[in-house]
Order: sequence, then C-alpha cells, then structure tokens
Amino acid sequence: MPEPSSLDSLIAALRCLPSVGPRSAQRMAWHLLQRDRAGASKLAEAITRSLAVLRHCAKCNGFSENEVCTLCANPRRDNKTLCVVETPADLAMIEQTHSYSGLYYVLMGHLSPLDGIGPRELEFDRLLARANDGAVTEVILATNFTNEGEITAHALATLLAARGIAVSRLSRGVPVGGELEYTGIGTIAQALAERRTV
Amino acid sequence: MPEPSSLDSLIAALRCLPSVGPRSAQRMAWHLLQRDRAGASKLAEAITRSLAVLRHCAKCNGFSENEVCTLCANPRRDNKTLCVVETPADLAMIEQTHSYSGLYYVLMGHLSPLDGIGPRELEFDRLLARANDGAVTEVILATNFTNEGEITAHALATLLAARGIAVSRLSRGVPVGGELEYTGIGTIAQALAERRTV
Repeated sequence: MPEPSSLDSLIAALRCLPSVGPRSAQRMAWHLLQRDRAGASKLAEAITRSLAVLRHCAKCNGFSENEVCTLCANPRRDNKTLCVVETPADLAMIEQTHSYSGLYYVLMGHLSPLDGIGPRELEFDRLLARANDGAVTEVILATNFTNEGEITAHALATLLAARGIAVSRLSRGVPVGGELEYTGIGTIAQALAERRTV
Repeated sequence: MPEPSSLDSLIAALRCLPSVGPRSAQRMAWHLLQRDRAGASKLAEAITRSLAVLRHCAKCNGFSENEVCTLCANPRRDNKTLCVVETPADLAMIEQTHSYSGLYYVLMGHLSPLDGIGPRELEFDRLLARANDGAVTEVILATNFTNEGEITAHALATLLAARGIAVSRLSRGVPVGGELEYTGIGTIAQALAERRTV
C-alpha cells in the first residue's frame, strides 16, 4: 500500500505548517484520515474560508473580515494610545491581561535584514501615518524582547520620536512569580539597571 | 481587531491535529495566513482530496486510492510473509530499511481496552482471514514495543498460532549505534535475556 499520491500530497502539504517535520506530518495525516475525519473536513473548510474572507484591517493591520476590525471600530477604546505588536497572537496576549484599553498596530513581523525584511516590507510608513492621525499621543512598543524585536523597537522609536510622538516600551525584568535562581543573568542585569524606587 | 470569527474557527480547527495546543494553533494560523497562503491553499485541497479518494486497501487495510493498493498488487512481493504493523507510518519505516520484501497488514491502531478499542474495533477477523489466504506461512508481528503494542502482539500471536501459522516478532535489544550507558535498564535486561550466540 505505499505512496498513494493523495496521501503523499497530504503529508507534503502538512509540512507547510511551522515546525512540522516529515515524522509529524505523517502522524498528522494518519490522525486526520483515521481518527478525525470530521475534524479534517472542518480544518480544510476553515483554511479555505479564512483565506477567502480575512484581510488586513485598514487601521491596525491585523486580520479582519471587514475594512476596519471590531477592536479598531470600538468607540470605547482609548484612541490616544497605540500599542505596536509583532503578531495577532501578541495582541491576543495583551488583550488577555485586561489592563490595556487603547488601540493596536500589528506589524505582522519584525525587522530581519538577513531575511530581507526591512522597513519597507513591514510598511513602517503605514504605521507612521497611523500614529500621526492627530489623536494618538503615545505609542507603546510591545515587540518581543528578542534581538529582532529590540532592533524593530529601536528603529520605530527613532522614527516616532522625530515626529514628536511620545514612545514607550514594555518594562523588562524578573517575571512575575519568577525566582532569581532560575532567571537568566541578562534579565537580572536588566532588572538591576532598571530598578524602581519603592 | 480581535476575534474575526473565521480566524477563530481556523485556530479551533487546527487543534484537531495531534499535539497541537492553543498556542501552536495560533502560531500556525498566523503562519498560514501571513507567510504561506499558497501552502495553506494546497493544504486545504490535499485534505479535501485525501478524504474523498483514500479508502482502506481490501488486502492490507492501509490507505489506498484503489480497491487494492499498489504494494499489495505488486507481484514481486513475497506473498508468503505478512508483516503486521500499527500504522502506515510504521509500514513506511520498514519499507525504508529495504530489507523486507513480503506483504503487510495495517491494524490502524492497537488494543487499548481503556479507550474501548478491542479485537472487534481493530477487526482482528479481517487480519485472521487475510493470514488464512493459503499463501501466507509466516506472520511477523511488528507492533510497537509499548505496553499496548506488546499486548496486541500477544493477542494476535495466540490467535494466529491456533490457526497453525508461524508467528514471529521483531527482536528487542540495544539499538544499532547505541551505547549501554545511555540505554534503558529494561532494554539491557531484554538484550541479556535474548542474547545470541556469535
């Protein structure tokens, strides 16, 4: 029973998913075909539908089914604050804290010169135009604290500050619940350098 | 831009894949929509097509586009030996060794009483009928060496032996290239008990 071409195609197609190698793809294919055909069918439909209906929100650049997404269209959000994140997942994490009521801008990536992703690819111009709408007074840079995220934040901070917009960055430090013994040296060094008076 | 329903549906649908939790699903959805729309489209097509055209081979029970799969239909395979595996992935692994020229039977699972998977669910009758075709003289049990795989092999060995068919099992022992220091105690004990004269 080797290599029915549609099974091979399915295994190959599954490898387009991030961090799915040949073994995982084979296991996923077997699972979909043998254990969860209903789920498989729903998955195919969900992908097709998402590709068809989702586009980028004209204001925040996140995924949306409409010209402007529901969050951007919500009049109860504070339109003076704009939080810049790398991905929709990051936005979802911040929303889950229930401690931010401003608006967002989703970069859909970070600067990565080696991969050919520069300010043009990330459409910095769109973000700058968005931040210059007259209402926004502060931009919070919430890109990741990885090398790429830091470089992206630094580049954006320079551009935004030149336009007279207040720019802030999420604080760095020991995680809530974290023990010093298990916290990275670099993080402890940051937490010391950026210590707060109490 | 939170919760466009089609994005939520996609994230939920991706969770039908084995070992994909909420975070992975979110990351996969973002990857499909932002980074690899062509791959996403191919994936949806491959799933839909596989669900439509793949069925179980009448002889080996593996996935096939035809009544009998190409491996079972290959006249150059030795039809006296039947190798029983749990999944198509296991079959693929054995084929990759290029050291087996017989036929296969794919159980599509293993005995797992706690999950309600018994001899009836695995259609042991079909396997027994297959092994009783008059040509098969030896059945090699190549189920996994997990508890469930061992139990399945034991049950099948009893049933097949009662029908006068020679039954064998893959050997257990230290993996090729393995160092004793990093080999499990249980494996070493097996390798001692089943030591071979050289």
